[in-house]
Amino acid sequence: MKPLHELTGMEAAVAIASGTITSEALVTACLERIKEREPAVRAWEYLDAEQALTQARACDRQPARSPLHGVPVGIKDLIDTVDMPTSYGSPIYAGHRPAADAASVALLRAAGAVILGKTVTTEFAMYMPGKTANPHNPAHTPGGSSSGSAAAVADTMVPLALGTQTAGSIIRPASFCGVVGYKPTHGHFALAGIKALSQTLDTLGGFARCVADLALLRAVLVGAAPQLPVLAQAPRIGLCQTPQWPQASAATRAALESAGQRLAAAGASVHDVVLPADFTPLAEAQETIQVFEGARCCAYELTRHRAQLSPKLLELLAPAEGLTYAMYADALALAARCRQHLETLWTAHDVLLVPSAPGEAPAGLDATGNPLFNRMWTLLHTPAVSLPGAHGAHGLPVGVQVIGPCGQDERLLAIAAWMHVRLLKLT
Amino acid sequence: MKPLHELTGMEAAVAIASGTITSEALVTACLERIKEREPAVRAWEYLDAEQALTQARACDRQPARSPLHGVPVGIKDLIDTVDMPTSYGSPIYAGHRPAADAASVALLRAAGAVILGKTVTTEFAMYMPGKTANPHNPAHTPGGSSSGSAAAVADTMVPLALGTQTAGSIIRPASFCGVVGYKPTHGHFALAGIKALSQTLDTLGGFARCVADLALLRAVLVGAAPQLPVLAQAPRIGLCQTPQWPQASAATRAALESAGQRLAAAGASVHDVVLPADFTPLAEAQETIQVFEGARCCAYELTRHRAQLSPKLLELLAPAEGLTYAMYADALALAARCRQHLETLWTAHDVLLVPSAPGEAPAGLDATGNPLFNRMWTLLHTPAVSLPGAHGAHGLPVGVQVIGPCGQDERLLAIAAWMHVRLLKLT
Repeated sequence: MKPLHELTGMEAAVAIASGTITSEALVTACLERIKEREPAVRAWEYLDAEQALTQARACDRQPARSPLHGVPVGIKDLIDTVDMPTSYGSPIYAGHRPAADAASVALLRAAGAVILGKTVTTEFAMYMPGKTANPHNPAHTPGGSSSGSAAAVADTMVPLALGTQTAGSIIRPASFCGVVGYKPTHGHFALAGIKALSQTLDTLGGFARCVADLALLRAVLVGAAPQLPVLAQAPRIGLCQTPQWPQASAATRAALESAGQRLAAAGASVHDVVLPADFTPLAEAQETIQVFEGARCCAYELTRHRAQLSPKLLELLAPAEGLTYAMYADALALAARCRQHLETLWTAHDVLLVPSAPGEAPAGLDATGNPLFNRMWTLLHTPAVSLPGAHGAHGLPVGVQVIGPCGQDERLLAIAAWMHVRLLKLT
Repeated sequence: MKPLHELTGMEAAVAIASGTITSEALVTACLERIKEREPAVRAWEYLDAEQALTQARACDRQPARSPLHGVPVGIKDLIDTVDMPTSYGSPIYAGHRPAADAASVALLRAAGAVILGKTVTTEFAMYMPGKTANPHNPAHTPGGSSSGSAAAVADTMVPLALGTQTAGSIIRPASFCGVVGYKPTHGHFALAGIKALSQTLDTLGGFARCVADLALLRAVLVGAAPQLPVLAQAPRIGLCQTPQWPQASAATRAALESAGQRLAAAGASVHDVVLPADFTPLAEAQETIQVFEGARCCAYELTRHRAQLSPKLLELLAPAEGLTYAMYADALALAARCRQHLETLWTAHDVLLVPSAPGEAPAGLDATGNPLFNRMWTLLHTPAVSLPGAHGAHGLPVGVQVIGPCGQDERLLAIAAWMHVRLLKLT
């Protein structure tokens, strides 16, 4: 048997439910892994070993309440926890104690999950990095803004973690860290109790080392029956370079092309898809909306605590001054048109296969990489999964992104699970 | 000149900007009105006269920062304020001090508005009433959930107040209290810092005694140039009984029909509109979504503070247990289809004119009336304005509701302003 800290969430839950292991033993193993690796990875903003073990022991005294019973979960520190400080990656909220758990945290607790601790986020989930390093090479960024969640799952510190995405904050770090990242359909998981940055874009999702764990997470958070993601027949895949292809590195191009070939060889039908010209300005429209809504969502911090905001955040939101409401409305209208057009693509394709990120995680911890390949899909509200398997010239992971129709998250996860096992050790 | 507390927000702002009155004098007049009337109306959850006057004096020392400079605004106690307790209408949060202002409050402060105090909300903006009475007859409900905001504006305690709507919590109390209520397009005003009940439905809006004040509020909250709502030509109005017509009282029927006649006489083109059969189950779909999402948004309170929730709230959310994810997804899909169909109606009509509420405010303070005539429009995400003017058999106000296309809030407000002056003293 592999070390306990390397178990996936589902493996762990099955072992706990069958009495093979206890939640306490699992959490102990995760804490030992963290103790060993945290000095290099720095994934955690807050972690109290005794608090985690107390929860685990309580789970061990109860009958299983869900397929995540006794399983530890990392919580991005953008998400409120009533018993752990929540600082949103900002000194403004250092030591802040929320009055309530976020809905997602409360649902996880009710399902018997162990809230292991809070993972590092960039400042208000924007671009000022936290302290986290890429576990595959600590001189490289883990990506952001869900930096700690992606790194902790990649480093087998915890099997499952929550993240959020407004531009590319789940899919990009999942790609950089070599784990599975899942950004659901916009609105699929309740955002209550999460620091709001953009009503049009903010999406709660998660990280794991297998797709099945994210299907379990989904079942708990939307209240659906937990079903293993199983596919009756090989999917129809639209291979799509997207308008951002010129910004894709050789590693990303190779990962996408190789994935298409492997999946075709495994029985999938794979056809090239070219998006209409309307889709080309979507990435820019996402940026317009993020900046416009971000400046309003952060009105309190911008007006009352400006000196405690990073120059990087102020620089990101500064263009809001030059954005008129009409420019913002045009961006929303473009997105609405493209969402309608996208619907017509799903008659011929079950999913689209697109890049997750421009390439490997860049060197340096002073930036978290470019969300260019994620902006469009976040704005289109489609569910997305980043699958690991490929590697670049520096030996760092490179993911591929699977996009499905809005609201069809369960089916997307089933297709992604089918693809994941066929892409492992992709070169 | 009328008493200062009776000034609209725009009249007050013009008087302040021209030096005719001070913000301090205006706020003093509002506080005196509140002192006189609050024992009967009970609109305020929190109000500190000195705190309000301190803000007003600070405004008087500064040059005007916006067309709301120096104007007092009431804030529904579902909305976070960093310097005033915020209890969301629940004993669970008695005395709760948020760590930040909601985005809307921060934007109002930045525009120079005076945050007068917190107005009564029902428990978590659902159906357990607060203490507020209808100012026109204190034996009757003011409606809910934005009870205090509607009553305070109606009673000339404050010219402008924020409210939120998830089912019918702005339009219904506006109708019951005889004021103008504005529920914007879904997502139009940032919800950051407002207790979340339903991501699909929650909408921030406001109450005033004239439409122009709500146009100013909109300009501040979306960051648009403040423009007076002026219409170039009389609008094309679709008179629509809606599938809920059998539940409309004689007063509501008469108000709608009389409004149609008056507006036609004033030059509007008025034509009957019958909605397709698909729209009939929309009200029920809204309820499904509200209950499904509400139970998840309130997961923390339901699991950790159940004993402090009212039986009425538990009863409202209890059906969530019997709702499957598929039922919820079907409701979302129906709404998406109807939103597309609704778009086709706007080629022939600028707005739809529909009932605001089943009739006059019901007697008793143990319930807040029925949101039946609001559910469909909240789910369709369309902007809506309730206009006063009519009265029922008990002499209480009865509003009519004007619906416009999604995103066309500025134009809807211009049309509503045109209509409002033509509907005053509607019988």
